[in-house]
Amino acid sequence: MPFPEHYDQLITLRRKAATLSSVQRLLNWDQETYMPKAAGPGRSDQQAAIAELAHKAATDPRLGDLISQCEADQGLLADERTAANIREMRRDYDMATRLPGDLVAELAKVGSQAQEVWKEARAKSNFKMFAPWLDRMMSLTRRKAECYGVPQGGELYDALLDEYEPKARAAEIEAIFTPLRPRLSALIGEISASKKKVSTKVLTSKIPAERQHAFGQFVLETMGFDLTAGRLDVTTHPFCEGLAPGDTRLTTRYRDEKFTDALYGTMHEMGHGLYEQGLPKDKLYGQPLSESISLGIHESQSRMWENFVGRSRAFWVWALPKARKMLGGALAKATVDQLHAAVNTAAPSYIRVEADEATYNLHIMLRFEIERALISGDLPIKDVPGVWNENFQRLLGIKVPDDRHGCLQDVHWSFGLVGYFPTYTLGNLYAAQFWEKINKDIKGLDGLIAKGEFSKLKTWLNRKIHAHGRQYRAGELCQKITGRPLSADPFMRYLEGKLRPIYGI
Amino acid sequence: MPFPEHYDQLITLRRKAATLSSVQRLLNWDQETYMPKAAGPGRSDQQAAIAELAHKAATDPRLGDLISQCEADQGLLADERTAANIREMRRDYDMATRLPGDLVAELAKVGSQAQEVWKEARAKSNFKMFAPWLDRMMSLTRRKAECYGVPQGGELYDALLDEYEPKARAAEIEAIFTPLRPRLSALIGEISASKKKVSTKVLTSKIPAERQHAFGQFVLETMGFDLTAGRLDVTTHPFCEGLAPGDTRLTTRYRDEKFTDALYGTMHEMGHGLYEQGLPKDKLYGQPLSESISLGIHESQSRMWENFVGRSRAFWVWALPKARKMLGGALAKATVDQLHAAVNTAAPSYIRVEADEATYNLHIMLRFEIERALISGDLPIKDVPGVWNENFQRLLGIKVPDDRHGCLQDVHWSFGLVGYFPTYTLGNLYAAQFWEKINKDIKGLDGLIAKGEFSKLKTWLNRKIHAHGRQYRAGELCQKITGRPLSADPFMRYLEGKLRPIYGI
Repeated sequence: MPFPEHYDQLITLRRKAATLSSVQRLLNWDQETYMPKAAGPGRSDQQAAIAELAHKAATDPRLGDLISQCEADQGLLADERTAANIREMRRDYDMATRLPGDLVAELAKVGSQAQEVWKEARAKSNFKMFAPWLDRMMSLTRRKAECYGVPQGGELYDALLDEYEPKARAAEIEAIFTPLRPRLSALIGEISASKKKVSTKVLTSKIPAERQHAFGQFVLETMGFDLTAGRLDVTTHPFCEGLAPGDTRLTTRYRDEKFTDALYGTMHEMGHGLYEQGLPKDKLYGQPLSESISLGIHESQSRMWENFVGRSRAFWVWALPKARKMLGGALAKATVDQLHAAVNTAAPSYIRVEADEATYNLHIMLRFEIERALISGDLPIKDVPGVWNENFQRLLGIKVPDDRHGCLQDVHWSFGLVGYFPTYTLGNLYAAQFWEKINKDIKGLDGLIAKGEFSKLKTWLNRKIHAHGRQYRAGELCQKITGRPLSADPFMRYLEGKLRPIYGI
Repeated sequence: MPFPEHYDQLITLRRKAATLSSVQRLLNWDQETYMPKAAGPGRSDQQAAIAELAHKAATDPRLGDLISQCEADQGLLADERTAANIREMRRDYDMATRLPGDLVAELAKVGSQAQEVWKEARAKSNFKMFAPWLDRMMSLTRRKAECYGVPQGGELYDALLDEYEPKARAAEIEAIFTPLRPRLSALIGEISASKKKVSTKVLTSKIPAERQHAFGQFVLETMGFDLTAGRLDVTTHPFCEGLAPGDTRLTTRYRDEKFTDALYGTMHEMGHGLYEQGLPKDKLYGQPLSESISLGIHESQSRMWENFVGRSRAFWVWALPKARKMLGGALAKATVDQLHAAVNTAAPSYIRVEADEATYNLHIMLRFEIERALISGDLPIKDVPGVWNENFQRLLGIKVPDDRHGCLQDVHWSFGLVGYFPTYTLGNLYAAQFWEKINKDIKGLDGLIAKGEFSKLKTWLNRKIHAHGRQYRAGELCQKITGRPLSADPFMRYLEGKLRPIYGI
């Protein structure tokens, strides 16, 4: 049946707003990849101008009126997917109208400048240089949270969290993190107590960036990432930008040594990228039904490809012969078991994006505590390095050498991403719970991976997760797919099941 | 003295409009360089959305009111530069308000699509595939010309020309082209009759693209192009995009053979780029005083660096030892005289961007005649290949083998650039006339070039041409700098003075 005019008009306005947002994403991508240094100030003006226009489009009162008309249209609500589309458009509109235009413009402009300062401060390991910008960004972020409003029985931080993980609460996350922590600590303890030491020597051969890039692109293509509808470039901090329909851009970074850093970085972003390419944007661009559910679900996709697939023994059965050919002589004598063990070593380290699966979630807990305290006002900016270093040592047992390896390592806070970090751990937990179900649904998945056949897995993810867009909330989707609410049990089963044999425990 | 409020407000609105235009330029640049193929349709939507907004900003009635207020403010008009700024803002506003928003959006959207089709049509040498798109673009372009209006005593084509070369007329250009043609033909005749044949063997060594790229960047930097405020990338059709303050992007294309194609392409775009970097955008962005005068003057800058500097003997005295080091063994036995002669061979060929200085202007005359006839309606789209091929043979004496080497070679018409081609020849003439003056002002310029010292030349151009922005019209600037109106004599003196000795005439 044809849709009524008010619904069609609503969809057209949403599409226009989405197009403006896609331009913002191109400005971001370009700033991170190819923009000349001297263009920084002009780029801030461009970001501010487009952010203001995108905000205007997202808060257009006609949008509100049309949503209200659709909400009163029982014919529309009778269809489950259309009803979800309307529900999510209401959510977006309410969130957008709570933010005044000047605040949005200021967040974009100051964020763009702060990011440039962060880059330099990180290179120089100079927190003082970054501190006033972090201060400005946190003030702006608190103002943003206040505009969204504290949910009943919640805290200011929840208002930020909700943007990335709809309806999540800091207290609930704390309730998942608190018991997870001793289980992780116990496993890390078992590993350090183990007499079996895992060698990573196989990863230390020098491999030129161009060869790594060619191999990375080969892996992407084999796993199903469409390079005619996407790219892979190089940035300081790898990311995936679902820029527009047919335009999903990944970035990675290469070092001559430890080629697996770039490889897993690439596969991680590809997981995000496959989600973006799997969303029905060609037909539904601008509609919630073509958008991702939450960052937690997004992260479940990247973690699945990076860790559950990429760090499996089966992956190396397939990849090692290819890697031998494409990466030069470096891996001539390497064995599958050596590689499988080497890429699964678990030991405390400084940089989150290089951390192993066992310690990673402890990095997240640290950031979650600090940003929650920054928002509540309990932690002054100047104390960030001290608190970071102290808590890091408590959680991971090693001493942070400098801020470059400490509180300056992540780009997130420089452009106001607060409430974002905990979704990484939620992603790990969702991935594990989905993975158990996938292995029930796809018989012999391990054998397929060992042959480089990824299409069944990709199709499962496309159908069960990507195709729905935002029809379900994260928790609902988890319940629908796995028959249970989110739990940390599958993740601990997965981690223990993989690491104990490697460490002979 | 401080400016009155109406002037400050005007400048602010102009800057906002310029910022939106700069985003359009980024969308263009990205489409040509890094955009994935599948992103084409989405990119058209983005282009259309931003074009509409930029047009809205440029036609904001508040702009018109403020310009009128400034035009009535004798205090402002007393300052020559401010008066010129106001005069040019009036010109821009009047031109912009003559175009309806939907036409601007359609030109951007159809142009973006037509460009994608052109790429494929050119690759397949398939004019029929491109014809309907050329037809649509010409209809839209004619509508644009009609909106601008035919100047008194002029023709529809003049309205298009005016956009690129303010106040120029097709009849005047014809009056310059008509006598220039036999002088060029005579010189080309002398050359083909000459017994001395120039060898281009020295240019045929295979040199990998990466080495060419490194050498090109070295030349750019030595000549004064600021790579911290610009870039060099690879596209099918080289261009320069003065994207924003501190952001001037050049492109080139590499072939393994004939490294000078890429080198001169790079130096050509760098000439444009030095103009863009020399405009006072840091302080005056959005104001006519920080913008280029006309395409003819822009082209005079690119031709000067490409031909007057780059194809001089002095250039190779400096460049050859560097090229020997950076391009590998290929040029080990080459001499300065061999290179100087080889890069100045003159002979009819098919591709405009690869044509020599003597035949180049005949390529332009061909395009000028065809596009003028397309706009007047005298030439149906389907006859373009036939007319092209017939006239090409008449002008250049060789037979066009296919449309890829004929009427499909240029990108311009695919996005509605009509009235643009003749400015290339105007650029050659301006360059020659400036060059004679420069050689009077800078004693021993040849000797400086032979030592790789380009700063005096660059500074001269910065001060005499770039710094003025649009304060003067092209003809005025020429008169002011050289003391004479534009003439083809300096160009013919330059060309004959260089080519006759090379060909022993």
